[in-house]
Amino acid sequence: MKKPLSIALLSGGLDSSTATALALEANHNVIALSFDYGQKHSKELTAAVNIAKHLNIEEHYIIEVNLAAWGGSSLTDNKQNIPIDGIKKNMIPNTYVPGRNTVFIAIGLSLAEAKEANNLLLGVNIMDYSGYPDCRPDYLQAYQDLANLSSKMGRSGQGVQLLAPLMKMGKLEIIKEAIRLDLPIEKTWSCYKGEQQPCGVCDSCRIRDAGLKQAGRLDLCSL
Amino acid sequence: MKKPLSIALLSGGLDSSTATALALEANHNVIALSFDYGQKHSKELTAAVNIAKHLNIEEHYIIEVNLAAWGGSSLTDNKQNIPIDGIKKNMIPNTYVPGRNTVFIAIGLSLAEAKEANNLLLGVNIMDYSGYPDCRPDYLQAYQDLANLSSKMGRSGQGVQLLAPLMKMGKLEIIKEAIRLDLPIEKTWSCYKGEQQPCGVCDSCRIRDAGLKQAGRLDLCSL
Repeated sequence: MKKPLSIALLSGGLDSSTATALALEANHNVIALSFDYGQKHSKELTAAVNIAKHLNIEEHYIIEVNLAAWGGSSLTDNKQNIPIDGIKKNMIPNTYVPGRNTVFIAIGLSLAEAKEANNLLLGVNIMDYSGYPDCRPDYLQAYQDLANLSSKMGRSGQGVQLLAPLMKMGKLEIIKEAIRLDLPIEKTWSCYKGEQQPCGVCDSCRIRDAGLKQAGRLDLCSL
Repeated sequence: MKKPLSIALLSGGLDSSTATALALEANHNVIALSFDYGQKHSKELTAAVNIAKHLNIEEHYIIEVNLAAWGGSSLTDNKQNIPIDGIKKNMIPNTYVPGRNTVFIAIGLSLAEAKEANNLLLGVNIMDYSGYPDCRPDYLQAYQDLANLSSKMGRSGQGVQLLAPLMKMGKLEIIKEAIRLDLPIEKTWSCYKGEQQPCGVCDSCRIRDAGLKQAGRLDLCSL
Protein backbone atom coordinates (compact mmCIF):
# COMPACT_ATOMS: atom_id res chain seq x y z
CA MET A 1 0.00 0.00 0.00
CA LYS A 2 1.09 3.51 -0.77
CA LYS A 3 2.30 5.48 2.22
CA PRO A 4 0.07 8.42 3.14
CA LEU A 5 1.56 11.83 2.40
CA SER A 6 1.20 14.47 5.12
CA ILE A 7 2.06 18.15 5.12
CA ALA A 8 3.30 19.03 8.62
CA LEU A 9 2.99 22.59 9.89
CA LEU A 10 6.29 22.72 11.73
CA SER A 11 6.83 25.82 13.85
CA GLY A 12 9.94 24.50 15.56
CA GLY A 13 8.16 24.29 18.89
CA LEU A 14 7.73 21.18 20.97
CA ASP A 15 4.15 20.46 19.92
CA SER A 16 4.45 20.59 16.14
CA SER A 17 7.76 18.73 16.31
CA THR A 18 6.13 15.94 18.32
CA ALA A 19 3.13 15.78 15.99
CA THR A 20 5.52 15.49 13.03
CA ALA A 21 7.53 12.73 14.68
CA LEU A 22 4.29 10.85 15.40
CA ALA A 23 3.32 10.96 11.71
CA LEU A 24 6.75 9.64 10.70
CA GLU A 25 6.41 6.86 13.27
CA ALA A 26 3.04 6.01 11.66
CA ASN A 27 4.93 5.61 8.37
CA HIS A 28 3.71 8.77 6.64
CA ASN A 29 5.78 10.55 4.06
CA VAL A 30 6.13 14.08 5.40
CA ILE A 31 6.68 17.44 3.78
CA ALA A 32 7.33 20.20 6.33
CA LEU A 33 6.00 23.74 6.10
CA SER A 34 7.13 26.65 8.26
CA PHE A 35 6.32 30.34 8.22
CA ASP A 36 8.26 33.53 8.42
CA TYR A 37 5.23 35.60 9.39
CA GLY A 38 6.98 38.66 10.75
CA GLN A 39 7.50 37.23 14.23
CA LYS A 40 9.96 39.27 16.29
CA HIS A 41 12.65 36.59 16.24
CA SER A 42 13.75 33.67 14.08
CA LYS A 43 14.67 31.22 16.84
CA GLU A 44 11.64 29.09 16.04
CA LEU A 45 12.51 28.93 12.35
CA THR A 46 16.07 27.84 13.12
CA ALA A 47 14.59 25.18 15.38
CA ALA A 48 12.19 24.08 12.62
CA VAL A 49 15.10 23.64 10.21
CA ASN A 50 17.07 21.65 12.80
CA ILE A 51 14.13 19.41 13.68
CA ALA A 52 13.31 18.75 10.02
CA LYS A 53 16.96 17.74 9.50
CA HIS A 54 16.93 15.55 12.58
CA LEU A 55 13.80 13.80 11.31
CA ASN A 56 15.31 13.35 7.83
CA ILE A 57 12.55 15.33 6.17
CA GLU A 58 13.87 16.15 2.73
CA GLU A 59 11.25 18.64 1.56
CA HIS A 60 10.81 21.67 3.82
CA TYR A 61 9.16 24.87 2.64
CA ILE A 62 9.57 28.14 4.51
CA ILE A 63 6.99 30.63 3.31
CA GLU A 64 6.97 34.35 4.03
CA VAL A 65 3.66 35.97 4.87
CA ASN A 66 4.06 39.23 6.69
CA LEU A 67 1.28 39.34 9.29
CA ALA A 68 3.36 41.96 11.09
CA ALA A 69 2.23 44.43 8.39
CA TRP A 70 -0.81 45.06 10.58
CA GLY A 71 0.47 43.79 13.93
CA GLY A 72 -2.24 43.17 16.50
CA SER A 73 -0.10 40.83 18.63
CA SER A 74 2.84 41.07 20.99
CA LEU A 75 4.54 38.41 18.86
CA THR A 76 4.61 40.66 15.80
CA ASP A 77 4.32 44.22 17.09
CA ASN A 78 7.32 45.85 18.76
CA LYS A 79 5.04 48.26 20.58
CA GLN A 80 3.43 45.42 22.56
CA ASN A 81 5.25 43.58 25.34
CA ILE A 82 5.09 39.84 25.79
CA PRO A 83 3.38 39.15 29.14
CA ILE A 84 5.65 37.58 31.76
CA ASP A 85 3.52 37.66 34.89
CA GLY A 86 1.77 34.33 34.55
CA ILE A 87 -1.13 32.77 32.66
CA LYS A 88 -4.55 34.36 33.03
CA LYS A 89 -7.49 31.97 32.81
CA ASN A 90 -10.32 32.60 30.33
CA MET A 91 -8.50 35.46 28.66
CA ILE A 92 -7.12 35.65 25.16
CA PRO A 93 -3.52 36.79 25.72
CA ASN A 94 -1.91 39.48 23.55
CA THR A 95 0.35 36.77 22.12
CA TYR A 96 -2.68 35.75 20.05
CA VAL A 97 -1.91 36.65 16.41
CA PRO A 98 -5.11 37.58 14.54
CA GLY A 99 -5.95 34.91 12.01
CA ARG A 100 -2.57 33.21 12.23
CA ASN A 101 -3.78 29.61 12.33
CA THR A 102 -6.40 30.33 9.67
CA VAL A 103 -3.64 31.65 7.40
CA PHE A 104 -1.19 28.83 8.16
CA ILE A 105 -3.77 26.11 7.59
CA ALA A 106 -4.91 27.79 4.35
CA ILE A 107 -1.35 27.85 2.99
CA GLY A 108 -0.91 24.25 4.17
CA LEU A 109 -4.04 23.27 2.24
CA SER A 110 -2.64 24.94 -0.88
CA LEU A 111 0.57 22.93 -0.59
CA ALA A 112 -1.37 19.76 0.22
CA GLU A 113 -3.57 20.18 -2.84
CA ALA A 114 -0.63 20.91 -5.14
CA LYS A 115 1.19 17.80 -3.86
CA GLU A 116 -1.97 15.68 -3.69
CA ALA A 117 -1.25 15.04 -0.03
CA ASN A 118 -3.72 13.14 2.13
CA ASN A 119 -3.29 15.03 5.37
CA LEU A 120 -2.40 18.32 6.96
CA LEU A 121 -0.78 17.78 10.32
CA LEU A 122 -1.22 20.26 13.18
CA GLY A 123 0.33 20.45 16.63
CA VAL A 124 -2.65 22.09 18.34
CA ASN A 125 -3.64 20.71 21.73
CA ILE A 126 -5.58 21.34 24.93
CA MET A 127 -2.99 23.82 26.21
CA ASP A 128 -3.53 26.05 23.16
CA TYR A 129 -7.23 26.08 23.04
CA SER A 130 -7.56 27.16 26.64
CA GLY A 131 -6.41 30.56 25.40
CA TYR A 132 -6.60 30.79 21.63
CA PRO A 133 -9.88 30.78 19.70
CA ASP A 134 -8.31 29.29 16.60
CA CYS A 135 -7.15 26.03 18.16
CA ARG A 136 -10.44 24.67 19.46
CA PRO A 137 -12.00 21.42 18.21
CA ASP A 138 -15.07 23.19 16.76
CA TYR A 139 -12.77 25.56 14.85
CA LEU A 140 -10.88 22.62 13.35
CA GLN A 141 -14.13 20.87 12.43
CA ALA A 142 -15.30 24.03 10.65
CA TYR A 143 -11.99 24.16 8.80
CA GLN A 144 -12.39 20.50 7.79
CA ASP A 145 -15.83 21.33 6.38
CA LEU A 146 -14.26 24.19 4.40
CA ALA A 147 -11.38 22.00 3.16
CA ASN A 148 -13.91 19.44 1.93
CA LEU A 149 -15.54 22.10 -0.25
CA SER A 150 -12.55 24.15 -1.29
CA SER A 151 -10.36 21.93 -3.38
CA LYS A 152 -10.47 19.97 -6.59
CA MET A 153 -9.94 16.82 -4.53
CA GLY A 154 -12.56 17.79 -1.97
CA ARG A 155 -15.18 18.10 -4.69
CA SER A 156 -14.58 14.49 -5.59
CA GLY A 157 -14.81 13.39 -1.97
CA GLN A 158 -11.11 13.04 -1.18
CA GLY A 159 -10.37 16.30 0.59
CA VAL A 160 -7.27 16.89 2.66
CA GLN A 161 -7.76 15.64 6.20
CA LEU A 162 -6.75 17.89 9.08
CA LEU A 163 -4.96 15.76 11.66
CA ALA A 164 -4.32 17.02 15.18
CA PRO A 165 -2.85 13.98 16.94
CA LEU A 166 -2.09 15.93 20.13
CA MET A 167 -5.56 17.45 20.42
CA LYS A 168 -6.46 15.65 23.64
CA MET A 169 -3.03 15.79 25.23
CA GLY A 170 -1.73 18.13 27.93
CA LYS A 171 1.89 19.27 27.98
CA LEU A 172 3.09 16.39 30.15
CA GLU A 173 1.68 13.79 27.76
CA ILE A 174 3.21 15.59 24.80
CA ILE A 175 6.60 15.65 26.50
CA LYS A 176 6.31 11.96 27.32
CA GLU A 177 5.59 11.28 23.65
CA ALA A 178 8.53 13.45 22.60
CA ILE A 179 10.83 11.50 24.94
CA ARG A 180 9.47 8.17 23.73
CA LEU A 181 10.08 9.27 20.13
CA ASP A 182 13.66 10.30 20.92
CA LEU A 183 12.92 13.83 19.80
CA PRO A 184 15.77 16.22 20.71
CA ILE A 185 13.60 18.44 22.89
CA GLU A 186 16.54 20.77 23.48
CA LYS A 187 16.52 21.63 19.76
CA THR A 188 12.89 22.79 19.82
CA TRP A 189 12.07 26.40 20.71
CA SER A 190 8.95 27.44 22.60
CA CYS A 191 9.87 30.79 24.21
CA TYR A 192 7.94 33.79 22.91
CA LYS A 193 11.06 35.90 23.28
CA GLY A 194 14.04 35.45 21.03
CA GLU A 195 16.89 35.90 23.46
CA GLN A 196 20.00 33.73 23.73
CA GLN A 197 18.24 31.46 26.24
CA PRO A 198 14.51 30.89 26.81
CA CYS A 199 13.18 33.51 29.24
CA GLY A 200 11.41 31.06 31.57
CA VAL A 201 8.66 33.55 32.41
CA CYS A 202 6.51 33.93 29.29
CA ASP A 203 3.36 31.78 29.11
CA SER A 204 4.95 29.39 26.66
CA CYS A 205 8.05 28.84 28.82
CA ARG A 206 5.87 28.41 31.91
CA ILE A 207 3.73 25.72 30.28
CA ARG A 208 6.74 23.91 28.84
CA ASP A 209 8.76 24.06 32.03
CA ALA A 210 5.85 22.84 34.15
CA GLY A 211 5.52 19.84 31.83
CA LEU A 212 9.23 19.13 31.86
CA LYS A 213 9.31 19.29 35.67
CA GLN A 214 6.40 16.86 35.89
CA ALA A 215 8.23 14.57 33.48
CA GLY A 216 11.32 14.72 35.71
CA ARG A 217 13.40 16.43 33.03
CA LEU A 218 14.70 19.33 35.12
CA ASP A 219 17.80 19.35 32.91
CA LEU A 220 15.71 20.71 30.04
CA CYS A 221 13.93 23.47 31.96
CA SER A 222 14.60 27.07 30.99
CA LEU A 223 15.99 28.29 34.29
CA MET B 1 -23.64 56.26 13.00
CA LYS B 2 -20.15 54.97 12.50
CA LYS B 3 -19.32 53.98 8.93
CA PRO B 4 -18.71 50.27 8.45
CA LEU B 5 -15.10 49.33 7.79
CA SER B 6 -14.48 46.81 5.00
CA ILE B 7 -11.33 45.08 3.87
CA ALA B 8 -11.51 44.72 0.08
CA LEU B 9 -9.57 41.94 -1.65
CA LEU B 10 -8.53 43.93 -4.69
CA SER B 11 -6.84 41.90 -7.43
CA GLY B 12 -6.89 44.71 -9.97
CA GLY B 13 -9.39 42.84 -12.12
CA LEU B 14 -12.80 44.09 -13.14
CA ASP B 15 -14.77 42.11 -10.55
CA SER B 16 -12.92 43.02 -7.38
CA SER B 17 -12.63 46.64 -8.54
CA THR B 18 -16.40 46.82 -9.06
CA ALA B 19 -17.10 45.18 -5.69
CA THR B 20 -14.81 47.73 -4.03
CA ALA B 21 -16.49 50.65 -5.78
CA LEU B 22 -19.89 49.32 -4.65
CA ALA B 23 -18.76 49.29 -1.01
CA LEU B 24 -17.50 52.87 -1.30
CA GLU B 25 -20.82 53.87 -2.84
CA ALA B 26 -22.53 52.28 0.16
CA ASN B 27 -20.45 54.60 2.35
CA HIS B 28 -18.03 52.03 3.76
CA ASN B 29 -14.54 52.93 4.79
CA VAL B 30 -12.32 50.65 2.74
CA ILE B 31 -8.85 49.22 3.25
CA ALA B 32 -7.55 47.41 0.16
CA LEU B 33 -5.54 44.21 0.20
CA SER B 34 -3.71 42.72 -2.78
CA PHE B 35 -1.39 39.77 -3.16
CA ASP B 36 1.90 39.11 -4.82
CA TYR B 37 1.42 35.33 -4.83
CA GLY B 38 4.02 34.38 -7.37
CA GLN B 39 1.77 34.97 -10.38
CA LYS B 40 3.71 35.07 -13.64
CA HIS B 41 3.16 38.78 -14.20
CA SER B 42 2.50 41.91 -12.15
CA LYS B 43 0.00 43.61 -14.49
CA GLU B 44 -2.83 42.89 -12.06
CA LEU B 45 -0.93 44.40 -9.14
CA THR B 46 -0.18 47.57 -11.08
CA ALA B 47 -3.88 47.73 -11.91
CA ALA B 48 -4.79 47.22 -8.25
CA VAL B 49 -2.57 50.14 -7.25
CA ASN B 50 -4.10 52.35 -9.96
CA ILE B 51 -7.67 51.43 -9.05
CA ALA B 52 -7.04 52.01 -5.33
CA LYS B 53 -5.64 55.44 -6.19
CA HIS B 54 -8.59 56.21 -8.46
CA LEU B 55 -10.99 55.28 -5.65
CA ASN B 56 -9.05 57.40 -3.13
CA ILE B 57 -8.35 54.43 -0.90
CA GLU B 58 -5.59 55.57 1.41
CA GLU B 59 -4.64 52.28 3.03
CA HIS B 60 -3.58 49.54 0.61
CA TYR B 61 -1.58 46.50 1.67
CA ILE B 62 0.26 44.33 -0.81
CA ILE B 63 1.25 41.06 0.82
CA GLU B 64 3.67 38.51 -0.56
CA VAL B 65 2.79 34.86 -0.23
CA ASN B 66 4.63 32.68 -2.66
CA LEU B 67 2.16 30.04 -3.82
CA ALA B 68 4.43 29.51 -6.83
CA ALA B 69 6.80 27.65 -4.48
CA TRP B 70 4.73 24.56 -5.24
CA GLY B 71 3.06 25.62 -8.51
CA GLY B 72 0.11 23.50 -9.49
CA SER B 73 -1.39 26.15 -11.80
CA SER B 74 -0.67 27.69 -15.17
CA LEU B 75 -0.86 31.10 -13.46
CA THR B 76 2.14 30.32 -11.24
CA ASP B 77 4.07 27.56 -12.99
CA ASN B 78 6.14 28.40 -16.08
CA LYS B 79 5.96 24.78 -17.21
CA GLN B 80 2.17 25.01 -17.71
CA ASN B 81 0.60 26.96 -20.55
CA ILE B 82 -2.44 29.17 -20.12
CA PRO B 83 -5.26 27.67 -22.22
CA ILE B 84 -6.33 29.83 -25.16
CA ASP B 85 -8.73 27.56 -27.05
CA GLY B 86 -11.96 28.45 -25.32
CA ILE B 87 -13.83 27.72 -22.11
CA LYS B 88 -14.62 24.09 -21.31
CA LYS B 89 -17.83 23.50 -19.41
CA ASN B 90 -17.81 21.51 -16.15
CA MET B 91 -14.03 21.36 -16.02
CA ILE B 92 -11.69 22.97 -13.56
CA PRO B 93 -9.19 24.79 -15.80
CA ASN B 94 -5.44 24.69 -15.11
CA THR B 95 -5.65 28.39 -14.23
CA TYR B 96 -7.10 27.22 -10.92
CA VAL B 97 -4.51 27.96 -8.21
CA PRO B 98 -4.73 25.38 -5.40
CA GLY B 99 -6.05 26.99 -2.26
CA ARG B 100 -5.64 30.54 -3.53
CA ASN B 101 -8.96 31.93 -2.37
CA THR B 102 -8.69 30.08 0.92
CA VAL B 103 -5.31 31.72 1.50
CA PHE B 104 -6.42 35.20 0.37
CA ILE B 105 -9.55 35.16 2.52
CA ALA B 106 -7.54 33.89 5.52
CA ILE B 107 -5.05 36.76 5.20
CA GLY B 108 -7.97 39.17 4.72
CA LEU B 109 -9.53 37.87 7.94
CA SER B 110 -6.24 38.47 9.76
CA LEU B 111 -6.16 42.08 8.57
CA ALA B 112 -9.86 42.51 9.32
CA GLU B 113 -9.42 41.24 12.86
CA ALA B 114 -6.36 43.42 13.50
CA LYS B 115 -8.23 46.49 12.22
CA GLU B 116 -11.53 45.49 13.86
CA ALA B 117 -13.18 45.68 10.45
CA ASN B 118 -16.79 44.63 9.97
CA ASN B 119 -16.55 43.08 6.55
CA LEU B 120 -14.32 41.30 4.10
CA LEU B 121 -15.29 42.16 0.56
CA LEU B 122 -14.89 39.67 -2.29
CA GLY B 123 -15.40 39.99 -6.03
CA VAL B 124 -16.47 36.37 -6.62
CA ASN B 125 -19.45 35.83 -8.91
CA ILE B 126 -21.34 33.32 -11.05
CA MET B 127 -18.70 33.40 -13.79
CA ASP B 128 -16.06 32.21 -11.33
CA TYR B 129 -17.92 29.44 -9.68
CA SER B 130 -18.80 27.78 -12.92
CA GLY B 131 -15.16 26.71 -13.01
CA TYR B 132 -13.49 27.18 -9.64
CA PRO B 133 -14.43 25.14 -6.57
CA ASP B 134 -13.39 27.89 -4.17
CA CYS B 135 -15.83 30.54 -5.38
CA ARG B 136 -19.13 28.72 -4.86
CA PRO B 137 -21.81 29.91 -2.44
CA ASP B 138 -21.51 26.81 -0.21
CA TYR B 139 -17.76 27.39 0.03
CA LEU B 140 -18.30 30.98 1.14
CA GLN B 141 -20.90 29.88 3.70
CA ALA B 142 -18.44 27.34 5.12
CA TYR B 143 -15.81 30.09 5.33
CA GLN B 144 -18.30 32.35 7.13
CA ASP B 145 -18.89 29.57 9.67
CA LEU B 146 -15.13 29.30 10.17
CA ALA B 147 -14.72 33.08 10.48
CA ASN B 148 -17.41 33.12 13.15
CA LEU B 149 -15.39 30.66 15.23
CA SER B 150 -11.88 31.75 14.47
CA SER B 151 -11.49 35.21 15.83
CA LYS B 152 -11.62 37.02 19.12
CA MET B 153 -14.55 39.00 17.73
CA GLY B 154 -16.28 35.90 16.38
CA ARG B 155 -16.29 34.31 19.80
CA SER B 156 -18.25 37.28 21.10
CA GLY B 157 -20.71 37.08 18.22
CA GLN B 158 -19.36 39.88 16.04
CA GLY B 159 -17.30 38.00 13.50
CA VAL B 160 -16.11 39.51 10.25
CA GLN B 161 -18.80 39.21 7.59
CA LEU B 162 -17.82 37.94 4.15
CA LEU B 163 -19.55 40.10 1.55
CA ALA B 164 -19.77 39.04 -2.09
CA PRO B 165 -21.99 41.71 -3.65
CA LEU B 166 -21.48 40.36 -7.18
CA MET B 167 -22.31 36.77 -6.28
CA LYS B 168 -25.46 36.62 -8.38
CA MET B 169 -24.22 38.73 -11.27
CA GLY B 170 -22.96 37.64 -14.66
CA LYS B 171 -20.23 39.57 -16.47
CA LEU B 172 -22.65 41.86 -18.31
CA GLU B 173 -24.31 42.97 -15.08
CA ILE B 174 -20.93 43.55 -13.48
CA ILE B 175 -19.82 45.67 -16.43
CA LYS B 176 -23.05 47.67 -16.27
CA GLU B 177 -22.39 48.30 -12.58
CA ALA B 178 -18.80 49.32 -13.34
CA ILE B 179 -20.01 51.78 -15.98
CA ARG B 180 -22.68 53.17 -13.65
CA LEU B 181 -20.04 53.64 -10.95
CA ASP B 182 -17.71 55.46 -13.37
CA LEU B 183 -15.03 52.89 -12.80
CA PRO B 184 -12.15 53.26 -15.29
CA ILE B 185 -12.56 49.78 -16.77
CA GLU B 186 -9.55 50.34 -18.99
CA LYS B 187 -7.36 50.55 -15.88
CA THR B 188 -8.42 47.11 -14.64
CA TRP B 189 -6.55 44.01 -15.81
CA SER B 190 -8.20 40.63 -16.39
CA CYS B 191 -5.94 38.85 -18.88
CA TYR B 192 -4.19 35.75 -17.53
CA LYS B 193 -1.15 36.62 -19.60
CA GLY B 194 1.05 39.56 -18.77
CA GLU B 195 1.84 40.91 -22.19
CA GLN B 196 1.75 44.54 -23.28
CA GLN B 197 -1.90 44.19 -24.33
CA PRO B 198 -4.54 41.68 -23.16
CA CYS B 199 -4.32 38.51 -25.29
CA GLY B 200 -8.03 38.31 -26.11
CA VAL B 201 -8.01 34.50 -26.19
CA CYS B 202 -7.53 33.30 -22.60
CA ASP B 203 -10.70 32.39 -20.67
CA SER B 204 -10.59 35.60 -18.68
CA CYS B 205 -10.27 37.81 -21.79
CA ARG B 206 -13.04 35.85 -23.51
CA ILE B 207 -15.48 36.32 -20.62
CA ARG B 208 -14.61 39.99 -20.25
CA ASP B 209 -14.80 40.75 -23.96
CA ALA B 210 -18.12 38.94 -24.35
CA GLY B 211 -19.55 41.09 -21.55
CA LEU B 212 -18.13 44.30 -23.00
CA LYS B 213 -19.57 43.48 -26.41
CA GLN B 214 -22.99 42.83 -24.89
CA ALA B 215 -22.71 46.14 -23.07
CA GLY B 216 -21.91 47.86 -26.35
CA ARG B 217 -18.42 48.86 -25.25
CA LEU B 218 -16.48 47.55 -28.21
CA ASP B 219 -13.92 50.28 -27.57
CA LEU B 220 -12.81 48.43 -24.43
CA CYS B 221 -12.49 44.97 -25.95
CA SER B 222 -9.07 43.35 -26.12
CA LEU B 223 -8.84 42.89 -29.85
